[in-house]
Amino acid sequence: MSLLVTGSIGIDTVKTPFGVSKDCLGGSAVYFSMAASFFSPVRFLGAIGADCPFDLKKIFKGKKVDLNGLELRHTSKTFRWAGSYQGPMNEAITDFVELNVLAEEPPQMPEEYKDSKFVFLANTAPILQIQLLDQLNRPKFVAADTMNLWINNNLADLKKLLKKIDCLILNETEARMLANEHNLITAAAKIEKLGPSVVVIKKGESGSIIHVSRASSPRKRGQDGRDTKLFVLPAYPATIVKDPTGAGDSFAGGFMGYLAGQNKTDFVTLKKAVAYGTVVASFTISDFSLKGLTKTTRRNIDSRLNELRKLVKF
Amino acid sequence: MSLLVTGSIGIDTVKTPFGVSKDCLGGSAVYFSMAASFFSPVRFLGAIGADCPFDLKKIFKGKKVDLNGLELRHTSKTFRWAGSYQGPMNEAITDFVELNVLAEEPPQMPEEYKDSKFVFLANTAPILQIQLLDQLNRPKFVAADTMNLWINNNLADLKKLLKKIDCLILNETEARMLANEHNLITAAAKIEKLGPSVVVIKKGESGSIIHVSRASSPRKRGQDGRDTKLFVLPAYPATIVKDPTGAGDSFAGGFMGYLAGQNKTDFVTLKKAVAYGTVVASFTISDFSLKGLTKTTRRNIDSRLNELRKLVKF
Repeated sequence: MSLLVTGSIGIDTVKTPFGVSKDCLGGSAVYFSMAASFFSPVRFLGAIGADCPFDLKKIFKGKKVDLNGLELRHTSKTFRWAGSYQGPMNEAITDFVELNVLAEEPPQMPEEYKDSKFVFLANTAPILQIQLLDQLNRPKFVAADTMNLWINNNLADLKKLLKKIDCLILNETEARMLANEHNLITAAAKIEKLGPSVVVIKKGESGSIIHVSRASSPRKRGQDGRDTKLFVLPAYPATIVKDPTGAGDSFAGGFMGYLAGQNKTDFVTLKKAVAYGTVVASFTISDFSLKGLTKTTRRNIDSRLNELRKLVKF
Repeated sequence: MSLLVTGSIGIDTVKTPFGVSKDCLGGSAVYFSMAASFFSPVRFLGAIGADCPFDLKKIFKGKKVDLNGLELRHTSKTFRWAGSYQGPMNEAITDFVELNVLAEEPPQMPEEYKDSKFVFLANTAPILQIQLLDQLNRPKFVAADTMNLWINNNLADLKKLLKKIDCLILNETEARMLANEHNLITAAAKIEKLGPSVVVIKKGESGSIIHVSRASSPRKRGQDGRDTKLFVLPAYPATIVKDPTGAGDSFAGGFMGYLAGQNKTDFVTLKKAVAYGTVVASFTISDFSLKGLTKTTRRNIDSRLNELRKLVKF
């Protein structure tokens, strides 16, 4: 089933204890698409400036990534980000950021993208996420990412967005902030009340939690008449972690790619999608930029998924 | 099979966002024994002073906890600890500590305890843990806890202890400190090289990792000729968390109690023991002091174990 991603293409400079990667390819739409393409064709929507040194056609060669939505703006500059990671590398320190093309109008949605059924709105201002979403005809399953900046400064817009989407994917700090609640399970339940029936909380090296609520299911209804289900999964216990950049977007790519590939969003499929997201992210962090992802295969991903399944079994 | 615990009995004062529990019963041996007694008889070794307001015979009434090793010192004072938890309650802030009886000679080992096969040396100075251990005849499986204080100040003693035990149970901060390594999987492997074939890393609300190495197994030997296996388990997704005090010792109690009850330490049994430890700790944190543990039943524990098994399945 068709899968659309709207997000950034970045020129990244990343420093980790394992080295420096200068002016390398990054951006949410890039990581997402590379990860999702193992499972489903992807429609790519994003903009670059005239300075972009990367040939995305070449980078996605052989992958089922439709680049008709890649907009080249001759008078603009590409988004740039420089960040560093220290110690356990749980969080990036932003050294500088130049929004450039991201501060302009969002890219034009190609007519043939408008029937997309699965949609991922990568992190940007919620008002822009809403504008992008409103151009689509009846998507089936819309997921979005967000960040502390919008929770703190654009909460009203974010709440509007939450009413329009099926799934919010966010990290534990953001979840606690948005729900104003320390306990992550309770936080997920509170976020669900704001709109998204599926809440995915990413905990980095500690895995993820998925909270699913379906008012329609007759089974195990909660006090409020809703049926809520939980799935908890540790991260894949990776020992080679060189660069965590893109882990979250790769997770989202594996997750959404699997759902779109299956054209299903039931609980069993959502759980497997979280596991695929986890595994795909473990390849991303094993090397700098896109290298960890591009050098793996669906076969490797499936093998690691089986390994993860065994690792949690008791 | 016989299970011995050596540890503290404490008069605790605990503040959490959910209230204050003044001069309540605490201590590693107490939490451990209550947790382990769901699975196995326990031999209790510890000392109290004349000021101890708790009747441990009454507290453990109906539980298979042998209190012959409880030493009452008429001229001493009981160990006291006051701590508080804030926000997500991941870490206790010690408000004050009075070692009292814990700063004296360790308690006398009753003759009939010396044939104990399963042993848990709760956190204390490693030199004392060694002294206690050396009084035993051929235990089968010895686990110990430790803390940052001993890693920083008594590392030589701790390394001696590690050569003598089968299992080290520690939290993620301690594991990183002891191994001088950020990656927890690599840290576990490094700690295993110091002695214990089983390393259990507790990550609080993020679950635990168990690293098992058996030189004797013919299967899947690593580069160094050892057979290493990993198990990762999220915490039970508790929404009622009132007081995390004793969670670690309850985890150890559930873990060791299950092993002793089964009289086995193979990988499958170790994994189930970690799951039982996880579940028992989730009852401990649901209320202040021992209340969460004492009001539950083996039936409730088994039911939550099955729930946890389902929660991680995909």
